[in-house]
This record gives sequence, structure tokens and C-alpha cells, in this order.
Amino acid sequence: MALLKTLLVVNSGSSSLKVSLFNLEQRRILDAHLKDIGSKKAALTITSSKGTKESTPEKADLRFVLDTISPESGEIVAIGHRFVHGGDRFQSTTKITPKVIAELKKLVDLAPLHNEACLNGIEECREYFGNKVEQFAVFDTAFFSDIPAYASQYAIPQEITAKYHIKRYGFHGISHAYLWHTYQEHVLDVTESSRVVTLHLGNGCSMAAIRGGKALDTSMGFTPAEGLVMATRAGDIDSAILEYLCIHDDKSPSEVLHTLNFKSGLLGVSNESSSMETLLKQYDKKPACRLAVDMFVYRAVKYLGGYIAVLGGVDALLFSGGIGENAAIIRQRIVDGVQWLGIKIDVQMNTQVKGLTPGTIQRIHVPNSKAGVFVVATDENMFIANEIQAALHL
Amino acid sequence: MALLKTLLVVNSGSSSLKVSLFNLEQRRILDAHLKDIGSKKAALTITSSKGTKESTPEKADLRFVLDTISPESGEIVAIGHRFVHGGDRFQSTTKITPKVIAELKKLVDLAPLHNEACLNGIEECREYFGNKVEQFAVFDTAFFSDIPAYASQYAIPQEITAKYHIKRYGFHGISHAYLWHTYQEHVLDVTESSRVVTLHLGNGCSMAAIRGGKALDTSMGFTPAEGLVMATRAGDIDSAILEYLCIHDDKSPSEVLHTLNFKSGLLGVSNESSSMETLLKQYDKKPACRLAVDMFVYRAVKYLGGYIAVLGGVDALLFSGGIGENAAIIRQRIVDGVQWLGIKIDVQMNTQVKGLTPGTIQRIHVPNSKAGVFVVATDENMFIANEIQAALHL
Repeated sequence: MALLKTLLVVNSGSSSLKVSLFNLEQRRILDAHLKDIGSKKAALTITSSKGTKESTPEKADLRFVLDTISPESGEIVAIGHRFVHGGDRFQSTTKITPKVIAELKKLVDLAPLHNEACLNGIEECREYFGNKVEQFAVFDTAFFSDIPAYASQYAIPQEITAKYHIKRYGFHGISHAYLWHTYQEHVLDVTESSRVVTLHLGNGCSMAAIRGGKALDTSMGFTPAEGLVMATRAGDIDSAILEYLCIHDDKSPSEVLHTLNFKSGLLGVSNESSSMETLLKQYDKKPACRLAVDMFVYRAVKYLGGYIAVLGGVDALLFSGGIGENAAIIRQRIVDGVQWLGIKIDVQMNTQVKGLTPGTIQRIHVPNSKAGVFVVATDENMFIANEIQAALHL
Repeated sequence: MALLKTLLVVNSGSSSLKVSLFNLEQRRILDAHLKDIGSKKAALTITSSKGTKESTPEKADLRFVLDTISPESGEIVAIGHRFVHGGDRFQSTTKITPKVIAELKKLVDLAPLHNEACLNGIEECREYFGNKVEQFAVFDTAFFSDIPAYASQYAIPQEITAKYHIKRYGFHGISHAYLWHTYQEHVLDVTESSRVVTLHLGNGCSMAAIRGGKALDTSMGFTPAEGLVMATRAGDIDSAILEYLCIHDDKSPSEVLHTLNFKSGLLGVSNESSSMETLLKQYDKKPACRLAVDMFVYRAVKYLGGYIAVLGGVDALLFSGGIGENAAIIRQRIVDGVQWLGIKIDVQMNTQVKGLTPGTIQRIHVPNSKAGVFVVATDENMFIANEIQAALHL
């Protein structure tokens, strides 16, 4: 009996691994989520139509995941890897060759934790499946690779921009692109001039201004450090603060940047937790938790206003990510911030959004709202599968 | 015969000095502008109702200016000094005492060039006039000292914020406050809920969101490095760029910050000039000049949209500063960026704005515009004079 042809998606994070299997009809066979890699709590969860299975690995790595899912893997015809940073060299989904790997290695500097994990994933798959199974890199930066220069460049000396390839690369592009496509598929009358702001609010948070499927701007920049307030990242700060702390706190630039990336954001302001859920529970009791939440909302409204101006008005707001999909009060407050534009959330619909399955889009605006407001359960791995299937012309 | 009672205002920059004399009826007697201090081109221009006089000083310092204007100084009853940075200690106009001077000295770190020049100015005036003439410090940060914490704090660890007094101080506050007051005096129906965005676009550029005279946010931050694209400052960048250049360009944090403050902005992007006037002349010929101008406008529109969102709509936009008062095409393009809100500039009125005298306010919107658009010739020294006169209860 011929095996079912499948596509494998490998999404390597710094301490987690999300593997998905799809058939060629773009249907999901299973998801495998390996969490807390490198710690004793490491655990693998497999979710499929048959239900959920948990297991504790002896060695928490990709090979263990591949072994565990192998009875259902069928004939894997291609593998897609999420790559965080494509630099200015990779602007679309790219077939992995030795030459491409050599170029990807040059980019490790730009996203050390993520890109190295991805490169390891590619090598492990090659060892596991051999050279016959084609592998592809799908880039989180690709969706933003052609935003206009006046939005993507920083106002720094021309020769530094050129020499060090410094620009706004943007991140979460796979998610932002997926949100747009989901919107386009499910909502009538979407055209080339439709103006959408996508809000990917998870541990990392970013916003994008999109017109007709083309990104015009996004809040993350040269690295994911810029933009919105995030779980542990500060987002926008005066760069002089970094210099000031180097001198007055006697730290190296990398030490300060580490603080800005890992000890700041909701965690740093609240001095309590990086979890929005926890902070919302403490909102009325602890002023620092309240301030962290208020800063998060304020920054988001300010960006939203900026992006609506850049778009010259807006047709829809799309919320996604852990916070965007689960924190009704945060969605409410952000949309209330642009209510003066006639954009209005339906309070009841908004609070009823719960546990959306990946790919679902749910309306939460009142009928006469001047712009649509939707929650979309993002599905990066589905987007990656679609990308490699398109690349293979299957 | 009794001498005319006067107020002296001293506005010390890093390489220039603007001194003004006012009578107690808030009328200007003269302005003295000493330029290019420390260079051989140093020159003093005195402007009064009698006309303009130029002179070349042997020693270009405050004493030379005071000597030159002494025939018209009358009886100086108080002196006001513009102080760039009040830290979190000084939130309003403050009488200079030895104790205050000691505290001001502690702030030199925060704005080295400017605050040191101001402290020297205070000492020189004490030597020149003795202790009898009261001196006051008027702070550029004061207008922003009570913007809400969710807008003024950075999302960095609480203990760093507290220990190093890191917050959005904002600058150009004297100018932004003056713009608001001029608007309030000249336009009917200004109330406590009137929402205004002030754009101070000069060599340094900043924007402020103001409701009923109270600042809610501003684009400069812990230092003047943050925010809009400026003549030689980059404004907003991903702070990770500073770290990246330290490592890969082998620079110290202070060297990179110097590049961001003095070699970036319009100058760095165009690789041609820091002057908007020059760049506009080259706009159609040189792509780099065009990019610099386009980035300037784009960043301004993005901020403007953000501030309008924060204000929940807007009643007026006020343009000021060298670019804001003189570059009609820049005003036009920024206002066009929010035309989707029904805000519309009158093209002819806009291009006719020329050589406004300080304190003038000129309308440039069409009658049915959803918000007013005005050019205001800012007058920091007048604002300082008003501040000290109020402090003296004269």
C-alpha cells in the first residue's frame, strides 16, 4: 500500500520545538510540541484527531519527536523550517542547498538563538531522512522584505546602513502574513486597497500595517527588541539609555541589551510576572502590575494610531497571539483607544472568544463599526506548509 | 530719572547665545544673538525697534553681550535662564539659590553641553550684576514633568528606572508650552478638553500631544536623541543597533551615540546636508536627499497619527521651528498624511507664510477642515520672561 504523502514543518525556538504534519490537501495530521528543552521538565505533547498524548523524553531533541511521530508520518515529501532571520539576502521561501546553508550561517549573528536552532534542525533532518527529502527555509522576515525604504531604513549614516545591512527587518512575518490571508479568505470584498493592521501579541509582540496584502510597516526592527511592550522586552526606548547604563551602571552594551530583551517589558515594569494573565489578576491590587498593563495598552494604541495614519484609514484590525487571542480586556482597551474613529467592539462577542482552533477567525465588532475587528488563531506551521507546497508546485 | 525696569532672558546653547530684554508690559526691547561661539566667525546681532546692528566681538561671551546691550538695559529686575534639563527634581520655574545651583550641577550628566552652558551663564550674570538681581531657571523639561506614567516610563526593570531616574523627560517644552498658549490666546473656544498636537521642527525636532494645556506625551525622551528624524539626530532606532555597532564596528557606546546624535538624521541619510532647505532643492536630483526628506515626513505622520489616537481626535495642529515655520512643502505633506481625517491645508495660505515675527500665529487650513492647522513663530525668550514675571508677582 502506498504511503500517504505528507509535509513536515519544523518550527525551532530557543527552548521549544513545534513540529506539524500536513497532508497535501492542506489538512493537519498532527502537531507535536516539545517544551522546556534543556530542562528537566521537558515534555512532548502530540495532538491529532485521535486526541492528545503526552510523553517525557529521555533526550529532548528533534530526533525524539521524529521517532515518536514516525508511525503517522507517511511519506514525507518535503520539510519546511521556520527561519527567524533572512537578513537582506533571503526575501522568500528558499530551497536548502549547501550554498544556502553557508549563507544562512552568516546570518546567525543577526538572530543568534533562533537561527542556530534552525540550522541544527536542518542538519538533524538531513541525518534522519537523508538527502532525498527536500528541505525549505521559510523566513519570518520575508513578509517585510519590501516595505518602502522610508519606513524600513533608520536615519543613520548611509555608509553604516550599507556596510552592516542595518534596516527594519521585522519579525513574526509568517504570522502577520497568515493573518492577512485568513482575513482575505473569510471576509468579502477584500481588495488590493484594503487596509489592515495586524496585532500579533504573544510573548513577543508586533504590529504590522498592511495594504492589499503588502506590508507597509511593522513595529519590530533590526531585531525583535524594538516596538511594543512585550513579556520581557522593553520595546521602544531612547537608545541613549543603553549608553547611559553602560557608563553609569558599568555594564557592557550586550549586558544592557540582555536586560532590555529578557528582564524588561511586563516583567520588568511589574517586577512580578511576564504573564499578562497574572498581571490582569493583580491589576486592582498592585500598582506596578497595573502600570505594566497600562503601558502595554498605551503603546499599542499609539502604534495603532500611527499605522492607521500611514494606511490613510483602516478596514480591519486582526488580533492574534497568546494575548491577542485570550485577553479580551486587552483587545477591548486597544479598540476603545480608536473608538473616536467609529471603530467599536461588541463587548459580549469579545468576551466570548475562547480556545479558538488554529486558523479560526472570529468577528468581534458591532455591525455598524467603521472597521472590522477580528480575532484570528494564528497558524504559522500551516502557513509554512502552504509555502513549501507552493514551492514544490504540488 | 528712574530707569525703565526690565527683564533679561539668557538662552545659552552649545555654540550660541540668545539674550533678550523685555519691559514689564511684556514688550520686547531687543534681542541679541551671538553665533558661532568658539569659532573665528563669531558674530553678534542686535535687533530692536531701531533696526539691526552687527558687531564682531574680541571675546565672544555673555559679558560682551551684556556690555553691548547695557545702554538699553535699564534696571534689570530679574534674569531668566533657559535650562534644558530639570531632571525629576525641577518641575517648574525655580529661583536660583546656592542650594539650587548645587542640585543643578548634579544634572549636568543628563544634558552635558546645554546644562553646563546654563550654569556658566548664571555664574557670569552673578559676577556681572552681583547678588541683588534675582535669577531664575526655566526648564525645557518642566512642561512634560507630569505626563502620565504609562507614557513617561520606559518598559525597563523598575529598579533601574528608580535608581537612575530614567524616564521620558521630553525637551523643547518651553516652545511647546508657548505654542499652546499662543493658540489659546488667539483662537476662540479653546477649552480644557481641546486637543492639540504641537510640532516643533527645527534642528532638533519634537512633537507633543496636549489636552487643555496639559502635555500627555512627547517624542523626545530620556535625552533629545529619541523620536523624529532631525537635522543630525537619528531619532527612533532599535536600541540593539547601538549594541551591534559597538561589537561589529568596534566602537564604544558613547562613540555610537555621538554618531546617532551628530552624524545621523537628514545629514546621515542624505550624505549631503543637515539643512532641509538644501535637501528640498536636491529632492528631484539626488535619491539620497529624497529619501532623507521622505523619512522625515513619514516619521512625522506616524507620530502624528499616534498622538491623535492618544488624544482621541484632534482640534489643531501647530507647526513651529525653522522647518515648521519655513518649509511649506513639509507642512503640506505632513497634513496631507492625515487628510483622511478631514484635516485639510489651504495650499495658497500655506505657501504664503513667510518670515513671521516671533509670537505670530497664522491659520493655514481650509474653512471646513476638521481641525485647525496653524503656523506659530515660537518665542522661547518671551515665554521665559513671562515665567519670571509671574514668579516675581510683578
